Amino acid sequence: MLPTWNREPGLRVTRASHVVLTGRDLDASEHFYRDVVGLVVTDRTEDTLWLRGLEEASHHSLTIHRSDTARVLRIGMRVDGPEEIDRATAALAALGVESAEVEVPHQGRTLHFTDPSGVDVEFVAEMDVVERRMQAFHEFRSAFPQRFDHYQLVTHDVQKATDFWSDLGFRLAEYTATDGTDELWGSWLEVKGNTHDLVFTNGRGPRLHHWAYTVPDASALIHAADVAGSLGFGDCIDRGPGRHGLSNALFLYMRDPDGHRVELFTTHYQYIDPEVPPIRWDVSHPQRAQLWGMPASERWFFEASEFPDRALCEPLVSSSPQTLEAYLGLH
Amino acid sequence: MLPTWNREPGLRVTRASHVVLTGRDLDASEHFYRDVVGLVVTDRTEDTLWLRGLEEASHHSLTIHRSDTARVLRIGMRVDGPEEIDRATAALAALGVESAEVEVPHQGRTLHFTDPSGVDVEFVAEMDVVERRMQAFHEFRSAFPQRFDHYQLVTHDVQKATDFWSDLGFRLAEYTATDGTDELWGSWLEVKGNTHDLVFTNGRGPRLHHWAYTVPDASALIHAADVAGSLGFGDCIDRGPGRHGLSNALFLYMRDPDGHRVELFTTHYQYIDPEVPPIRWDVSHPQRAQLWGMPASERWFFEASEFPDRALCEPLVSSSPQTLEAYLGLH
Amino acid sequence: MLPTWNREPGLRVTRASHVVLTGRDLDASEHFYRDVVGLVVTDRTEDTLWLRGLEEASHHSLTIHRSDTARVLRIGMRVDGPEEIDRATAALAALGVESAEVEVPHQGRTLHFTDPSGVDVEFVAEMDVVERRMQAFHEFRSAFPQRFDHYQLVTHDVQKATDFWSDLGFRLAEYTATDGTDELWGSWLEVKGNTHDLVFTNGRGPRLHHWAYTVPDASALIHAADVAGSLGFGDCIDRGPGRHGLSNALFLYMRDPDGHRVELFTTHYQYIDPEVPPIRWDVSHPQRAQLWGMPASERWFFEASEFPDRALCEPLVSSSPQTLEAYLGLH
Amino acid sequence: MLPTWNREPGLRVTRASHVVLTGRDLDASEHFYRDVVGLVVTDRTEDTLWLRGLEEASHHSLTIHRSDTARVLRIGMRVDGPEEIDRATAALAALGVESAEVEVPHQGRTLHFTDPSGVDVEFVAEMDVVERRMQAFHEFRSAFPQRFDHYQLVTHDVQKATDFWSDLGFRLAEYTATDGTDELWGSWLEVKGNTHDLVFTNGRGPRLHHWAYTVPDASALIHAADVAGSLGFGDCIDRGPGRHGLSNALFLYMRDPDGHRVELFTTHYQYIDPEVPPIRWDVSHPQRAQLWGMPASERWFFEASEFPDRALCEPLVSSSPQTLEAYLGLH
Repeated sequence: MLPTWNREPGLRVTRASHVVLTGRDLDASEHFYRDVVGLVVTDRTEDTLWLRGLEEASHHSLTIHRSDTARVLRIGMRVDGPEEIDRATAALAALGVESAEVEVPHQGRTLHFTDPSGVDVEFVAEMDVVERRMQAFHEFRSAFPQRFDHYQLVTHDVQKATDFWSDLGFRLAEYTATDGTDELWGSWLEVKGNTHDLVFTNGRGPRLHHWAYTVPDASALIHAADVAGSLGFGDCIDRGPGRHGLSNALFLYMRDPDGHRVELFTTHYQYIDPEVPPIRWDVSHPQRAQLWGMPASERWFFEASEFPDRALCEPLVSSSPQTLEAYLGLH
Repeated sequence: MLPTWNREPGLRVTRASHVVLTGRDLDASEHFYRDVVGLVVTDRTEDTLWLRGLEEASHHSLTIHRSDTARVLRIGMRVDGPEEIDRATAALAALGVESAEVEVPHQGRTLHFTDPSGVDVEFVAEMDVVERRMQAFHEFRSAFPQRFDHYQLVTHDVQKATDFWSDLGFRLAEYTATDGTDELWGSWLEVKGNTHDLVFTNGRGPRLHHWAYTVPDASALIHAADVAGSLGFGDCIDRGPGRHGLSNALFLYMRDPDGHRVELFTTHYQYIDPEVPPIRWDVSHPQRAQLWGMPASERWFFEASEFPDRALCEPLVSSSPQTLEAYLGLH
Repeated sequence: MLPTWNREPGLRVTRASHVVLTGRDLDASEHFYRDVVGLVVTDRTEDTLWLRGLEEASHHSLTIHRSDTARVLRIGMRVDGPEEIDRATAALAALGVESAEVEVPHQGRTLHFTDPSGVDVEFVAEMDVVERRMQAFHEFRSAFPQRFDHYQLVTHDVQKATDFWSDLGFRLAEYTATDGTDELWGSWLEVKGNTHDLVFTNGRGPRLHHWAYTVPDASALIHAADVAGSLGFGDCIDRGPGRHGLSNALFLYMRDPDGHRVELFTTHYQYIDPEVPPIRWDVSHPQRAQLWGMPASERWFFEASEFPDRALCEPLVSSSPQTLEAYLGLH
Repeated sequence: MLPTWNREPGLRVTRASHVVLTGRDLDASEHFYRDVVGLVVTDRTEDTLWLRGLEEASHHSLTIHRSDTARVLRIGMRVDGPEEIDRATAALAALGVESAEVEVPHQGRTLHFTDPSGVDVEFVAEMDVVERRMQAFHEFRSAFPQRFDHYQLVTHDVQKATDFWSDLGFRLAEYTATDGTDELWGSWLEVKGNTHDLVFTNGRGPRLHHWAYTVPDASALIHAADVAGSLGFGDCIDRGPGRHGLSNALFLYMRDPDGHRVELFTTHYQYIDPEVPPIRWDVSHPQRAQLWGMPASERWFFEASEFPDRALCEPLVSSSPQTLEAYLGLH
């Protein structure tokens, strides 16, 4: 069932902005994200590593805390200034969701909560401002990653998750539904004016499937793959290069040394005008997952990062074997 | 003087969306914009030609009416639905600006007004929805232009124009000022979350200097130049390819058969977070206009499209010969 | 065993230049090669289709004759002028190979023979000269294919085939050998000064695995894949985009409507200086087949085009299951 | 007058391979060629710097000796092995040109001579073999320069220079002639199977106008310009990016800290088949110098590197003011 888009949600979430992970070896993480992906290292302490894209003026879009296990702790979103934290608290409460304001280094007012599908989220009002490195071209490495863009979550209840975020002002841009019905399999939700900030797909969840950085063009995507190869990370690619029919993204997916998945892609189309309806795809449509080329690896479909305290739930929408084969692009 | 950004302007303008021109020969215009630039022809009648970018779901981002003279009639912006037209009427009235609702084919509610610097504007609530052609890759031509992005106006009073649009919710992303002062020479204003929707630069105005379409990458920019060359339009390029320091755009500027100037460029950096200040450039900074390469042609600096009923005013901020040389990149 | 390069072979073969195929439906072939690959159609009759790359001044680099079956008839090479046909006849006779001069439309003196591995070859002294279309940029389609480059054959006896062509002046640039030995699994042989004109790999043969056109860059490769997708040929891709370790080629492989395989790739490195030795790869080296990314499809490994009158022979060099898995990139 | 191509010159020159310069500050040279251009530093001593492209297996393609003045000492070519030095000595003597064998570090047999237009040349039979760095993608910088390609010389007597090199086996690929005549203004001569190894253009000479490295694609060219800008070398660009009509090269020209000019370009079309005639351009043809875009700077036309002991001669072919304007693209 299509969600109802709440255009006056009472708070202004502006964009998906960062993720917070744990990893087992910060040296390995730093090498991977700096040299194989090309991110800028903003800072590092004994226990924490902060990174960002080349054009980002915010202190971090990726935070990795040292740990014995590799988990995703939070997905992060920006709100439009400190006063929005109060408005968010109220808006969440009205939806029956508790939240708590916390202190986080290099961040202004920050609000923690868990969405109805079990995803741990933080809203951030401000971050330390740092220098954009987008014109330090001589320092560019690998994929030339520009900025954090979105994340995709595996959830057992796509409908509930979609409804919740639509209530907070997110707008459905594209969606996948069981063939011939409006039973949601996946929802692509946006808040910053292009195709997606937040994606939910059907499966055992909650898990973080991936998050994404934009890259300038296909050349950068190929160069990143080449650099991965020459640094011995050729196997870290678990899908692509390829083109999704859904969202039209030209993508490359990589796994970091802890197994977390990062997507590099060449940005979206714009999605702003209110009269334009979302695009619908049958889950079995052959060009939904890829407009061309070879199917994704099985590990791309079935592996994802877990949240530390969230039990996994089996998906409410079940798959016939035929649907699954179609979904995997095996037909 | 830096403008005061009005974050609660009482109306929601969402983006710069289109321009309305007159041209002397619609066959020549259609050939140029379809084959040399690569736009999609949405429709054409005896007297009017409508075009759009490959990913645009709106009926037109460029309208050309047949005429004996080549002029710019309107710059167009989208507002966030029909009710915003009423809010815009009130917001403009509060600023002392009269407006009038008009009927325009293929557009929903449309409001006409003239800004304090003499620029004729229309706010549009909706347009006819047409099919995005962004996945019809086999139809792509020349620059693969994706979408309308922004326009730049020459104005005699940058300060006044900047203040007016800041009052309507536009935010300053970058600006040029007389060396060592805050006397504005140019202002880059945005409303859609990246560097600019609307630019004002100092000079005899009001005139439209150019409007811009985004293209996917440098390869597309070079291919467009090659196609221009092979179709006999090599001379229509009056600047580039080059990189602006200001805004970091990789650009190519072309003149259409009527002399109107269109920019092709590889998109912006994101500009959303409220705590990030605008970037300031001295007008004489050598990398402001171009980070590298050869200076623009003089015609790029001094030629622009006029509005039919607006007398040109000399700029209030005058230039020493030294400043002018710096501005032209001739030092 | 490494072949002996005969630097004074008594004839001047200058390059791999064309292939001659049969196909079942010339309309389908023309659509595929013109619109999905981007070749120029030089001419077409009731029974024959001739195509070439954008920069080619020769009449054809791909000839397709209508037939009930899809076969490869000949691989073609250019020699350095008419008198070389006489020298070639003598050089082949000295190697115990019979040849026959034949008449072929649009070709000058042409010599037919069968190499010791069963491959049917033609040497061509001249072709009709046609206009290079490399500066008709507005006509470029899909991959912007520039020129014919090389072919790869599956053969049961790589050693014999390699020795024969080395005798005719071809030079080994890279090769694959059974781990720790010099038992040849594949040989990359060149005559035009870059990595390969002619490749032999171990398997049931003789069969034509693929031939290749150069494309300008990664953007063209991706655009070709996009165009294949939008024209409904997404499934025709059976490998890539990817990077071979061996030869360093950035590649995309497509199957035509008859199952013939064409490679698009972004050219070679130069290989001219006589003191530089060939590069050796163990057959089980993980980066031999691809420097990064996902393994090829099985059909890429096992399907190829047959010659009409040649019985297939089982390979002389056999594979342990482990070697085969390594070869397929499945380890 | 078109030269007579000597197809049996009695020696095998295989390619233009390197230049030998003097420079005033090797630190400045190393910074420029390594960081702004992206070459690999093979070695450096107190007085000499050796560099090469990413795919080059030869020790150097650019040698810079420290000196008080900036000059070009030699243009270098490879011959096909040691015995060719003897054949070259004989072939030169037959043309009345003296030569002398010399010892040069990291080079095998090396022959020095001066061509009839006053250009100092060395033929080199072998060089120390070093590792190709073409798959060390993580080390790539700026333009990703692949290999040395060609040089262009300004000469007072294009006809004499062209005839001499044609006698040595170089083949005319394209040429510029006084309008409506065959009076040569420029000759593009090749020996390695693509458009040019050696170019002569009319003017005060002998001087080295530039030499060229190939780069993979337009993205690399633009990235090099960006890196030049971010490292403070934006002004070193004295032409481009642009497309020559003649030879179809997509180019960018830079000046090193001593004023020597290096071209970066995206390679040639192939030119092998003997029946294909050279391409002729009127010197006043508007698309000869550039297929599109803005004219070159005057310094591009009039500045070049001198040989230490060669007096400059005024060109034998003189220019009317109209021709000169056409040549400069000013019409």
